[in-house]
Amino acid sequence: MAALIEVTDPDDPRLADYRDLRDVELRKHLEAEHGLFLAEGEKVVRRAVEGGFAARSFLMAPRWLDGLEEVLASSDAPCYVVSEDLAEAVTGFHVHRGALASLERTPLRSVEEVVAGARTVVVPEDVVDHTDVGLTRLPPTRRRIAVLEDLVDHANVGAAFRNAAALGVEGVLLSPRCADPLYRRAIKVSMGAVLQIPWTRVDPWPDGLAALMEHEFTVVAMTLAKDAVDLDELVSMEPERLALVFGTEGSGVTPETASMADLRVRIPMAAGVDSLNVAAATAVAFYATR
Amino acid sequence: MAALIEVTDPDDPRLADYRDLRDVELRKHLEAEHGLFLAEGEKVVRRAVEGGFAARSFLMAPRWLDGLEEVLASSDAPCYVVSEDLAEAVTGFHVHRGALASLERTPLRSVEEVVAGARTVVVPEDVVDHTDVGLTRLPPTRRRIAVLEDLVDHANVGAAFRNAAALGVEGVLLSPRCADPLYRRAIKVSMGAVLQIPWTRVDPWPDGLAALMEHEFTVVAMTLAKDAVDLDELVSMEPERLALVFGTEGSGVTPETASMADLRVRIPMAAGVDSLNVAAATAVAFYATR
Repeated sequence: MAALIEVTDPDDPRLADYRDLRDVELRKHLEAEHGLFLAEGEKVVRRAVEGGFAARSFLMAPRWLDGLEEVLASSDAPCYVVSEDLAEAVTGFHVHRGALASLERTPLRSVEEVVAGARTVVVPEDVVDHTDVGLTRLPPTRRRIAVLEDLVDHANVGAAFRNAAALGVEGVLLSPRCADPLYRRAIKVSMGAVLQIPWTRVDPWPDGLAALMEHEFTVVAMTLAKDAVDLDELVSMEPERLALVFGTEGSGVTPETASMADLRVRIPMAAGVDSLNVAAATAVAFYATR
Repeated sequence: MAALIEVTDPDDPRLADYRDLRDVELRKHLEAEHGLFLAEGEKVVRRAVEGGFAARSFLMAPRWLDGLEEVLASSDAPCYVVSEDLAEAVTGFHVHRGALASLERTPLRSVEEVVAGARTVVVPEDVVDHTDVGLTRLPPTRRRIAVLEDLVDHANVGAAFRNAAALGVEGVLLSPRCADPLYRRAIKVSMGAVLQIPWTRVDPWPDGLAALMEHEFTVVAMTLAKDAVDLDELVSMEPERLALVFGTEGSGVTPETASMADLRVRIPMAAGVDSLNVAAATAVAFYATR
């Protein structure tokens, strides 16, 4: 049971994990050095704790205590109870969704573990059963992994994870330059999916992707190159194991990575229009290949 | 040819159109009362002017003048040339993409015009020819319109327009509560697509959607309701004229609107996962029905 501790001094050192959440550079250092990450909002805090991440502490206004009663009961970390004004003074913004938690990062998985892993998506217990949805119609051997190359925007990384979770992609591999999936904004945009889908960094990049080939994945570089085949053609091939590689919006997948791929595939688009952003491209590709 | 006018006083009244761009409420009043909207960034400014919107003025730092030379040559509106510091002082934020323009809003189209309209998407002249892309394979009579109900988030509205443009949707209808497509952030997220795709408001809502039925559109409410048919089923029907209605993420299409629809359709998703956000849902639905 988390001890409820009222804090009234914004400079209280026990609130250090929650300082200046809008200062991206400061947070990167602070979170890396202390091996922590922040969860924001009742739903995400619950998913993090239920997903097995150990809480260092919680921070919330009194009105959020009831909704998180069970979560707090399951943890020994302290819960700092503060006014909304104090929360704002510490974090630097109005905490709309009220509850925050600081959690311990876990060691990164190996690429092998993500690639070879079975369907290890954690389904929260509060979720209703949807046995009628599309995924149950997939052959049990069909597997899909998403590979994100150099997506430096936290919102894009979060959106890719959310789409992966919604559309049944089992794992995510990230290039070293990709934004941190456990950064607050990425977690929030992902609706907590980064806490559920197995993921890791690939290093060296892109050579570490060889693990995909060893496991007989068809590696597909998503690109707007004219010589790429249409997404429909990929769908008609029905690959049993499929790794979809997405690059930055501007340049797409790097030539080095594209040359490692088995196939180059593009989403056909209307004439004269900028490409879909990478989040929309993941949604389309994950849906089409489900 | 736009006159280049150097301005060094942040309180110069000629800069009034550009004040406090981060203040959403203030901007809503100011833009409505003066019938203006703001375009941000070289590409969007160009699209707005080339799309036929009349500029009231331009505001930019000297380094953006060259890139917009032709656009400025085509307009009689004044171009206020300012330092980047002054631009920041006036607008309230660092203007990353440099160029701003204030433009006259045009009268809203009639619903009839959007629904009956031919393919009136303006293709900017600087765009390369892509006659090999998917859309050219559509039968010429097949038409699609997107309907957005109560999307209050400017980014979601912008993303829906961007996806519509990229995936060949010809028009957009908005409920009265939808966020303004010509608000700066919506334009930016749409990559200027709101300036290209014909759109209008539907009022009264939802009765004004009757124009879709009169033009023999199949009206489809996108929803997560269990009794909805899967998107695949809709695709297999191959409707010649299709209107796809998207609602807010939380509640989906309202019951009133859903009851007007010919069909309720859902995107199949993995068990235990929050739905796709509405931007991703538009990308999937537009792609699947192309």
